[in-house]
Amino acid sequence: MSTEKIPYKIYLSEEELPRTWYNVRADMKTKPAPLLNPGTGQPMGYDDLRPVFCDELIRQELDNDTREIPIPEEIRDFYKMYRPAPLVRAYCLEKKLGTPAKIYYKFEGNNTSGSHKLNSAIAQAYYAKQQRLKGVTTETGAGQWGTALSMACAYLGLDCKVYMVKCSYEQKPFRREVMRVYGASVTPSPSPETEVGRRILAEHPGTTGSLGCAISEAVEVATTTPGYRYVLGSVLNQVLLHQSIIGVETKTALDKYGVKPDIIIGCAGGGSNLGGLISPFMGQKLRGEADYRFIAVEPASCPSFTRGRFAYDFCDTGMVCPLAKMYTLGSNFIPSANHAGGLRYHGMSPVLAQLYHDGLMEAVAVEQTKVFEAAEQFARVEGILPAPESSHAIRVAIDEALRCKETGEEKTILFGLTGTGYFDMVAYEKFHDGTMTDTIPTNAELEASFARLPKVPGQS
Amino acid sequence: MSTEKIPYKIYLSEEELPRTWYNVRADMKTKPAPLLNPGTGQPMGYDDLRPVFCDELIRQELDNDTREIPIPEEIRDFYKMYRPAPLVRAYCLEKKLGTPAKIYYKFEGNNTSGSHKLNSAIAQAYYAKQQRLKGVTTETGAGQWGTALSMACAYLGLDCKVYMVKCSYEQKPFRREVMRVYGASVTPSPSPETEVGRRILAEHPGTTGSLGCAISEAVEVATTTPGYRYVLGSVLNQVLLHQSIIGVETKTALDKYGVKPDIIIGCAGGGSNLGGLISPFMGQKLRGEADYRFIAVEPASCPSFTRGRFAYDFCDTGMVCPLAKMYTLGSNFIPSANHAGGLRYHGMSPVLAQLYHDGLMEAVAVEQTKVFEAAEQFARVEGILPAPESSHAIRVAIDEALRCKETGEEKTILFGLTGTGYFDMVAYEKFHDGTMTDTIPTNAELEASFARLPKVPGQS
Repeated sequence: MSTEKIPYKIYLSEEELPRTWYNVRADMKTKPAPLLNPGTGQPMGYDDLRPVFCDELIRQELDNDTREIPIPEEIRDFYKMYRPAPLVRAYCLEKKLGTPAKIYYKFEGNNTSGSHKLNSAIAQAYYAKQQRLKGVTTETGAGQWGTALSMACAYLGLDCKVYMVKCSYEQKPFRREVMRVYGASVTPSPSPETEVGRRILAEHPGTTGSLGCAISEAVEVATTTPGYRYVLGSVLNQVLLHQSIIGVETKTALDKYGVKPDIIIGCAGGGSNLGGLISPFMGQKLRGEADYRFIAVEPASCPSFTRGRFAYDFCDTGMVCPLAKMYTLGSNFIPSANHAGGLRYHGMSPVLAQLYHDGLMEAVAVEQTKVFEAAEQFARVEGILPAPESSHAIRVAIDEALRCKETGEEKTILFGLTGTGYFDMVAYEKFHDGTMTDTIPTNAELEASFARLPKVPGQS
Repeated sequence: MSTEKIPYKIYLSEEELPRTWYNVRADMKTKPAPLLNPGTGQPMGYDDLRPVFCDELIRQELDNDTREIPIPEEIRDFYKMYRPAPLVRAYCLEKKLGTPAKIYYKFEGNNTSGSHKLNSAIAQAYYAKQQRLKGVTTETGAGQWGTALSMACAYLGLDCKVYMVKCSYEQKPFRREVMRVYGASVTPSPSPETEVGRRILAEHPGTTGSLGCAISEAVEVATTTPGYRYVLGSVLNQVLLHQSIIGVETKTALDKYGVKPDIIIGCAGGGSNLGGLISPFMGQKLRGEADYRFIAVEPASCPSFTRGRFAYDFCDTGMVCPLAKMYTLGSNFIPSANHAGGLRYHGMSPVLAQLYHDGLMEAVAVEQTKVFEAAEQFARVEGILPAPESSHAIRVAIDEALRCKETGEEKTILFGLTGTGYFDMVAYEKFHDGTMTDTIPTNAELEASFARLPKVPGQS
């Protein structure tokens, strides 16, 4: 343990780059519920999942027991391009807030995808390559995941087909262009290229798409094109596993300086960043070795944890995917169009859902104008323009730090800064122009959505 | 000197962050020519420059003798937000090229301004604050400098007025928006707000502006508004001084691993990045302690070094600034509108101009389509989407590495990767769509521009 002053940025050396991912499921008493076959309602095993996912990724998806899973050397080499990622002591923000709290953030935005998504993209592309596939398909909303997967595929020489939610495709031409730099094909979704796309277009001719719909298209193409599989950037157990590198690095860096966080905060859409950040800390908590407060932050306009149902639901709109037990708003739920802050998926990772259900984690929902206020305050003193998604965590970190200011407590607050907002300037512009509003779904809207949850044995 | 394997990224510790800037003028036998008063043709001293520039910055501008100038602690603290910047060993690029050359690049893009410009922005803002000024004015073209200055001013609580070349203002609304996040006011130039702006608008009603014109406006506002001074992001001696932190860090990192570069390459617009990168190395060369090949890379569409005149010229279109002795294309020269690669200033830093004139440095001009080819090749293996400006250096680094492949020489190549291209996707899109063309000014165009160089005693 070092006794020197904690630097602004703690960089681990390449030698300290983790050699294993941390599988928090190994520590969970109640394991996350298995994926179910939507037709039979039966749990899906290795063979059932092979048409959709890469073999090794299915093994990781189903492995609830192995706590430490080795990271292949080739993936570690790729990680070295942009990792270990810095753990930043937010001295400037602390000073600005006048808080006795100590604030740390793990910054995942120092790579061209602009977010943590690259951590899982390279792993998934690597296993696809190992299986000698030609390529992979996926969906992307705001574009971080699609960009990350394009980068990983370009590096490994794999084909990459991205179905991009149509409204993002049109509003974010630059994201699309970055994916093209990396050689990916990008198709606005819903598209007339797939059966499910044609069906959705026929039913809703003017639709601007949704993540759930883009997933359906990507899955259809993967399962009908020889040599292709489908990959997903969040929600799944495997993705949280890969993202655990965020938490393992963070814990290694904090341990070096003898720092123990009191509160760990992350934004939550599908849960990949939060799940990755908390993994090794939650492991300690589950084993009774240490205690932490974990806070998931979600948008008030898409409040899966705080207002959703803990139930089996479809992962996609087209209902072609396995059923997952999540906190869900219903697979047809689409957040209001004026919601600019990302995190718009209707469900939440089964791992996090179970942990939340078991009372091991808290969740709060925040409104987007408050999120952008925090984003701007942060940018001006910490010098990083944060992604709207990440700014949800900033909002709550600032709120907790201000609470410490009132009480005089010197708490240590850690949050995940998942990425940068360089491709989100339209949202920042709305915020500055005062045209950004907050939208919260009504109870009636949610009830209507819940009414369409699938019938599953044992689920009322 | 470490004997371990050279990592992908060499990060110095915060302790190793340089404590002094390196003033290469102290090593130059022939000093850069002084700034001249455009009215009298006489060299301008401290008192002459005070209406325009901050006091301490003028001292730095005129100091040709002090080799090491201390960096104030407050500036070092700000630097710690994003520095030391990584020196990257381009293992992946080397492998892709199949070259025996060893390639290193100093990456300055890991901050929200997206470039090295922040190194001088914080220094200039700091001295303005020290002088108890209310604010500063400046111009920006592509927007990196304006963003950097906005960030520095937000941090210090200074007002920041940016005159942005009109075509960039319109084509890059997101850059403008980032500046607004940092609280700057951004005005498209030429504007009706200034005398010089009104004059230019009257003469050329449809003009989309130029850097030289935006400089004139910013200077006018600074000199007519109490409590304001003008700051500039390139060309000046003081800016190269601040940017020397790039070179000092790079040299420290290379020395640690016992690596000596054979070739040092940088893109050159006004010269701030190249001048900063080479400073301590050039110092060694000037003192006869070591030899290096230095290569300045400029766009073929704005070829100040390779086709310009070494002469006194105006720094701005409105002719309100001091005259500087530069390699210049004439202060009225405007590169073709289809030039997308940045680096569009008509002149070149007096320090670099003198070094080039004295045969201490080489220069090459490259065409933009070749630059974007190199950019894309680099992005796909090194994972960083480079700025078009930086990609000029990548082009020549790749060319030199391929030459090594032919000859079998294991040269060590170092280049400056000044920034990221996230706000340049329109240019990338043109490149992909095949609509990007190369434009080279004709000799007649240049001769016409040279004919308007100012009459200065001793200059034909």
